[in-house]
Amino acid sequence: MSRDLPNSKDTELLQRARRVVPNGVWGHMATRGIGPGYPQFFSRSEGCRVWDADGNEYIDFMCAWGPNVLGYKHPEVDQAALAQMQRADIGNGPTEVMVELAELLVDTIDHADWALFQKNGTDATTVSVTIARAATGRRKVLVARGSYHGAVPWCSPSTVGVTTEDRAHLIQFDYNDVASLEAAVAEAGQDLAAILMTSFRHDIQRDQELPEQAFLTAARKACDRTGAALIQDDVRAGFRLDVRGSWAPYGIQPDLAAYSKSIANGWPLASIAGNARMLEGAAKIFTTGSFWYGAAAMAAAKVTVRILKETDALTHIAAMGQRFRDGLEAASERHGYRLRQTGPVQMPMVLFDGDKDLALGNAFCAAALRHGIYLHPRHNMFFCAAHQASDIDRAMEAADRAFADIAKAGFTQQ
Amino acid sequence: MSRDLPNSKDTELLQRARRVVPNGVWGHMATRGIGPGYPQFFSRSEGCRVWDADGNEYIDFMCAWGPNVLGYKHPEVDQAALAQMQRADIGNGPTEVMVELAELLVDTIDHADWALFQKNGTDATTVSVTIARAATGRRKVLVARGSYHGAVPWCSPSTVGVTTEDRAHLIQFDYNDVASLEAAVAEAGQDLAAILMTSFRHDIQRDQELPEQAFLTAARKACDRTGAALIQDDVRAGFRLDVRGSWAPYGIQPDLAAYSKSIANGWPLASIAGNARMLEGAAKIFTTGSFWYGAAAMAAAKVTVRILKETDALTHIAAMGQRFRDGLEAASERHGYRLRQTGPVQMPMVLFDGDKDLALGNAFCAAALRHGIYLHPRHNMFFCAAHQASDIDRAMEAADRAFADIAKAGFTQQ
Repeated sequence: MSRDLPNSKDTELLQRARRVVPNGVWGHMATRGIGPGYPQFFSRSEGCRVWDADGNEYIDFMCAWGPNVLGYKHPEVDQAALAQMQRADIGNGPTEVMVELAELLVDTIDHADWALFQKNGTDATTVSVTIARAATGRRKVLVARGSYHGAVPWCSPSTVGVTTEDRAHLIQFDYNDVASLEAAVAEAGQDLAAILMTSFRHDIQRDQELPEQAFLTAARKACDRTGAALIQDDVRAGFRLDVRGSWAPYGIQPDLAAYSKSIANGWPLASIAGNARMLEGAAKIFTTGSFWYGAAAMAAAKVTVRILKETDALTHIAAMGQRFRDGLEAASERHGYRLRQTGPVQMPMVLFDGDKDLALGNAFCAAALRHGIYLHPRHNMFFCAAHQASDIDRAMEAADRAFADIAKAGFTQQ
Repeated sequence: MSRDLPNSKDTELLQRARRVVPNGVWGHMATRGIGPGYPQFFSRSEGCRVWDADGNEYIDFMCAWGPNVLGYKHPEVDQAALAQMQRADIGNGPTEVMVELAELLVDTIDHADWALFQKNGTDATTVSVTIARAATGRRKVLVARGSYHGAVPWCSPSTVGVTTEDRAHLIQFDYNDVASLEAAVAEAGQDLAAILMTSFRHDIQRDQELPEQAFLTAARKACDRTGAALIQDDVRAGFRLDVRGSWAPYGIQPDLAAYSKSIANGWPLASIAGNARMLEGAAKIFTTGSFWYGAAAMAAAKVTVRILKETDALTHIAAMGQRFRDGLEAASERHGYRLRQTGPVQMPMVLFDGDKDLALGNAFCAAALRHGIYLHPRHNMFFCAAHQASDIDRAMEAADRAFADIAKAGFTQQ
């Protein structure tokens, strides 16, 4: 193995954090579940690079777990947001930017007749469900087993602190399994309010699956037949795969779609885009938040969406993702390892075949960190427009050395 | 009545908004429920002033409904946030600022042994309830009838799109009514997880009530006796009344407190501060959000809390609130109107006595707008440190003219 990276500052910050924050760090960015070798604290981010608290530099393939789509500190995005902030960010109502952004989303997203804004992806999924229930007057919501839709009681992956009643009206089906979807639709009967599903299957620590055309078509038809709402949770994939909505290539239009993460290139924002059929439901519910009209984040979104729409940023991201996938495949083969690379190349999941306890994945990612690339052993990764071919090539050199490291350390594959 | 203010831009924006946003504007900042004369869109904010989309200037007594506590565009706060943004805002984990801010809150808030961060006030109340359930292994949560704790199904003031099960484990009591609180505690029995209450009674369109000492003491004792969590919803009042927590003057310590609004002077942030007894519960739950580690908002909070702690900002805010209350009382008496001014002077509720349909309040506020002050006819208002005596005096001249206007227009009080 190569030398360990300096981590004294990271260790000190984690010790301090543990005295004043439960577990020191909470949620999806806590690294104690993975490891070893992951820095927990960061000091700088720019383009496709992050620097940890000790100043170690990494080519970043997590992109803040999605929000970074054009590159950290994108000058045009940040300039627009800061200029708006100089005029007005929060006040006693919205600014013109809210209207402009809603108009832009309606012009951009295939199914969108209107938009609403929030702060968290969980806000967007939760409010979408509320709108669907208001629009239909029904209660049951179908969700795919294992899909992530947020971290509040009705949808959290954990049931600690959650009551049975929080999920009383959820019915589960299996993603990409038409028969199980139809069975769930039948179970809901006259009370079916919505089918909620992620844009593709991107559950943690398992192969990703693109949606099958027949599956999306069945979901759309079930909603058309029953009057239920098809809700697309595009929080993770939205504005990274296709600016028209991640199901645009399939020709499937949801009634409601939830966005967040990359919509404003890291400025905190979420959005729901809905069609005319959902308008009355959306107009009837009460939904709000103290910072939801914040105009700086909306100005950032306006520029982000415009750039994604008008430039080849998304084509470039896909090309970089493909270059990474091909390079990683070749590198793994050189060292005798078999990878499972699944999902869209822009949001790749990389698992070692048969690596059930993640021993290989963890060792490989730890080695990769030491060679200057930040990967994730069990969650999908993200590419951004700031990744250049030279970054990918440099990352592939690092990956090659990481494979060599784990081979030398005796990590073998079944 | 005096001349109407120009509003062509506001009208145009609202027309455009209605084509792409349900109702044009959603939530607490939609002005269609109040009226007439309220501008809906804003173009600028600075200090204690806001400018609407048509450029009309107002001395602002809503402070963005709370977030503005030091003055819009406070140079020191914004400079710290922007400097942090230049280093790192979001990334693959927290920055040192998260640790520093948690340390500052623990040093500042009486009951706090630890802190967690979110984006919305609703996040902070929702996660607090989840922590209380995780800590106690119980389900029932006591809430005061009519109190606002957020806008998601378990607590929304609207039941449209909400199911019965969303509120299955809530039991209501009346604020400041010890007997009703005790009855609710008895009803919950062995299943009592938490008593959740706002720092004072600040329900919409009714007199505000400070908490009675005996009531807070009863709530604290009930939680001590039963092992339940006392959750203080300090989202609206926190960091405006007392930096140690809004119950500090009463000597009552909650187990968990939820903050948001003014904690970062308008930068989007929320926080939970908890005591040692709640630590294990907080460490067990899963809670997260895409932007919750955003370091710019945390840097803003660090400066905001420090200024509130180290300067006389809060004393000044209270003095300005008292000056406003005294001035408004005198002006109303001069014109023969009887007001009900209730709650803390820093967050005043101003109602006309006997004005059940708000006809007087609406007319007065509409007149006040024309004279350059932004008041609210049925929601509590907010003072910030940027309000100067000269602003209050100028506002009182406007109020005097507004009272004269409504008197001249024939508005009389029963």
